[in-house]
Amino acid sequence: MATPAFDYYQTHRDRFLDGLKTLLKIPSISTLPEHKADVRRAAEFVANELRLMGMRGVEIIEGGANQNPLVYAEWLEAPGKPTLLLYGHYDVQPPDPLEEWVSPPFEPTIRNENIYARGAVDDKGQTYLLLKAVEGFLRTEGKLPINVKFLIEGEEEVGGEHIEEYVEKHPERLKADAALVCDTEMFAPELPTLTTGLRGLVYTEVEARGAAHDLHSGMYGGAAPNPFQALAEIVTGLKGPGGKIRIPGFYRRVKKPSRKELDAWKRLPFKEKEFLKKEVGSTALVGEKGIPVLERLWARPTLEVHGIRGGFTGEGAKTVIPAVATAKVSMRLVPDMDPREVIRQFTSYVKNLTPNGIRTTVRLLSSAPASVVSTESPYIAAAAEAMEQVFKKKTVYMRSGGSIPIVGLFSKHLGIPSVMMGFGLPDDNLHAPNEKFHLPNFYRGIEAVGRYFELLGR
Amino acid sequence: MATPAFDYYQTHRDRFLDGLKTLLKIPSISTLPEHKADVRRAAEFVANELRLMGMRGVEIIEGGANQNPLVYAEWLEAPGKPTLLLYGHYDVQPPDPLEEWVSPPFEPTIRNENIYARGAVDDKGQTYLLLKAVEGFLRTEGKLPINVKFLIEGEEEVGGEHIEEYVEKHPERLKADAALVCDTEMFAPELPTLTTGLRGLVYTEVEARGAAHDLHSGMYGGAAPNPFQALAEIVTGLKGPGGKIRIPGFYRRVKKPSRKELDAWKRLPFKEKEFLKKEVGSTALVGEKGIPVLERLWARPTLEVHGIRGGFTGEGAKTVIPAVATAKVSMRLVPDMDPREVIRQFTSYVKNLTPNGIRTTVRLLSSAPASVVSTESPYIAAAAEAMEQVFKKKTVYMRSGGSIPIVGLFSKHLGIPSVMMGFGLPDDNLHAPNEKFHLPNFYRGIEAVGRYFELLGR
Repeated sequence: MATPAFDYYQTHRDRFLDGLKTLLKIPSISTLPEHKADVRRAAEFVANELRLMGMRGVEIIEGGANQNPLVYAEWLEAPGKPTLLLYGHYDVQPPDPLEEWVSPPFEPTIRNENIYARGAVDDKGQTYLLLKAVEGFLRTEGKLPINVKFLIEGEEEVGGEHIEEYVEKHPERLKADAALVCDTEMFAPELPTLTTGLRGLVYTEVEARGAAHDLHSGMYGGAAPNPFQALAEIVTGLKGPGGKIRIPGFYRRVKKPSRKELDAWKRLPFKEKEFLKKEVGSTALVGEKGIPVLERLWARPTLEVHGIRGGFTGEGAKTVIPAVATAKVSMRLVPDMDPREVIRQFTSYVKNLTPNGIRTTVRLLSSAPASVVSTESPYIAAAAEAMEQVFKKKTVYMRSGGSIPIVGLFSKHLGIPSVMMGFGLPDDNLHAPNEKFHLPNFYRGIEAVGRYFELLGR
Repeated sequence: MATPAFDYYQTHRDRFLDGLKTLLKIPSISTLPEHKADVRRAAEFVANELRLMGMRGVEIIEGGANQNPLVYAEWLEAPGKPTLLLYGHYDVQPPDPLEEWVSPPFEPTIRNENIYARGAVDDKGQTYLLLKAVEGFLRTEGKLPINVKFLIEGEEEVGGEHIEEYVEKHPERLKADAALVCDTEMFAPELPTLTTGLRGLVYTEVEARGAAHDLHSGMYGGAAPNPFQALAEIVTGLKGPGGKIRIPGFYRRVKKPSRKELDAWKRLPFKEKEFLKKEVGSTALVGEKGIPVLERLWARPTLEVHGIRGGFTGEGAKTVIPAVATAKVSMRLVPDMDPREVIRQFTSYVKNLTPNGIRTTVRLLSSAPASVVSTESPYIAAAAEAMEQVFKKKTVYMRSGGSIPIVGLFSKHLGIPSVMMGFGLPDDNLHAPNEKFHLPNFYRGIEAVGRYFELLGR
């Protein structure tokens, strides 16, 4: 691979790292309104890099309910060659709990060949490597082996309404043969991996209201309804102790993956004991009995509570029965489940479970269907080969339990498959304290994407 | 009642109100460590008032785990007359949720003959009226009809360990014939009320730990244990939808009140519909079926959740499965229940209810037994008469669902009954936003206490 672009990848590693650090220092937390200006700074940083490396038509696209801009750029001077739509996101999750970070979340720090920062792997590092892969060609040869369009968003972590609207309204501008989505992980260190399926997501807030105002538990305990008790009963009613979701009709459209896919998963280097011990670190795993862990994570829907707000949670003892409490509850969906149907089933069952004296409201915060990509596509085959050449190992296929709504949108509105090359590692602490990105994977990611361009350009 | 003391009460009303406002402005929140200095300022204010009015041996007593001082003072120059131990507390509950206050919690504001401020009724207003009742005698006649000792504490809202230790160690110094505790409420406006029973309290924090660190619900949902799910199952397991507590042995020592007491409660001006509509404001009341509301509130134990900490509760959608979540859970006890036994039963049942993959820890934050006072005591009879003379209505007896641990301690270590004269109203928003004290009750409280001294001095 001794072409000018690959020489460039080798000699500019330090500069690539500096650029990544600059991006990681921007606290572009899209879920927190107070970071709106930071989200914009990150968009401007990305747009500026695209401009400097020689991309055409660089544009910061305003709009969307959250006002988090999209960044678009194109280079379309390879007639007759395929066009790839490159996707990533520059926004990040909130960093809390802050006290568990070894180094501050927005001061990127290198320890043991890993760069630690919020967004390191999800998704600034993996977005930035797409930029650098393109830069290698444009800076050395002045051209790319294929046509590319960048579409980088700033609200992936908050529902992605803006990109959804944009993709729906501008299929002509975004027209491409396939999308390259860099926002997933490898099944294991050193094991090149393509993700071919994703779970969908329905994220809600369930508000429970009891009394008209906060009450003293001494004076009213035993007669006044307690919203926490109601939420506990609702949560317990939604999901049984065995992990089975009790919402009527919830599993109706869930299909078992093909025998072939299940067999391939069985051959993956997965040890339940190690997963429990090294990744989860609890005393036991939970979930539906009789279903293997990978199938539970990739091909079964689940329901989780993420936080419960209300009452008194400070130090010490306050004896309050709050007027209102709110639980954040999400569900992961698998292919064929319809998010709108799930929302209806969920809302109606929450009402059913609501105890006497309590009024509940369900608010939808975001939703996206699950998606699967066919491994028969030539774009998948070329991606597998590109990764294989860089990692010197056979590429494996996996699904992910996470959700990347854009993949469903690209399929629905542009009619194109998404190739999900991922360079994260299972212990990269995605969405958790001490998020990191393994630097060798950052550099190999640039090379694998560059190699993918070359293979597609032949 | 045209004695010099009662003239003084009439003519010094404005000054009494100014003094109360000064005390209410001090944010002496004992549950929040950052208000430690404010708690001390409140103690110093009380001590200074006692000194100025002519009390002897005024002392700020240091000690206790929380370092919130006690204030002691005495006047023992009425030989042969009874000695009354006057109790109140100068600390207050946290004011949150702040946004629900009409006027700021530490800027006392008068609207419709009520003074609004955190601590107005609980217990600064009712403590201050004890001081003013004594002041009336000392400033006009230079003496009191009886002997009095003041013991004012600064950590009632945080467990009261300091006073517990002090009462246990200094029974000689605190020796008295009865205690007068001004920290309760009237059954209804204009209805003079003595409280003759209190529920006890066991306040705990239940911590649930699952994974070693926070996890992404997409990557791990369906296999990793979720502490919120565990807490929901534990809470639902502790108390059934009907309000029945399921802890084995919990009700073993609970006795039904006497037929006479129950009949007296039935005669109280209580309308369940009005209580629901005006006081609670929910769509329905909850609790054990077949047991009248007042009996549920005063003579039945209950269990309540006050807050659940952990995960993500900010704006928007964060898909985290937290490593740890904590619920604040308290139980109210009735006479004959042993707090230590309840703590053992609770802890053991929480362990039983803890699902696979989760480790729970129960921390005890405070505890106190319930108490009942005999209505046969002459100190109760005189108190009933004093209130009757001031309010011009027959005094009723009630119990309270709240807990005043000091009453149990006075009984246990000093062997004296506590007379609970209360001047709060049911809608005073105790422990809630917009706490208030009805000013006519502040002034009548001073007179009733003054009259009580006279009656006891005869």
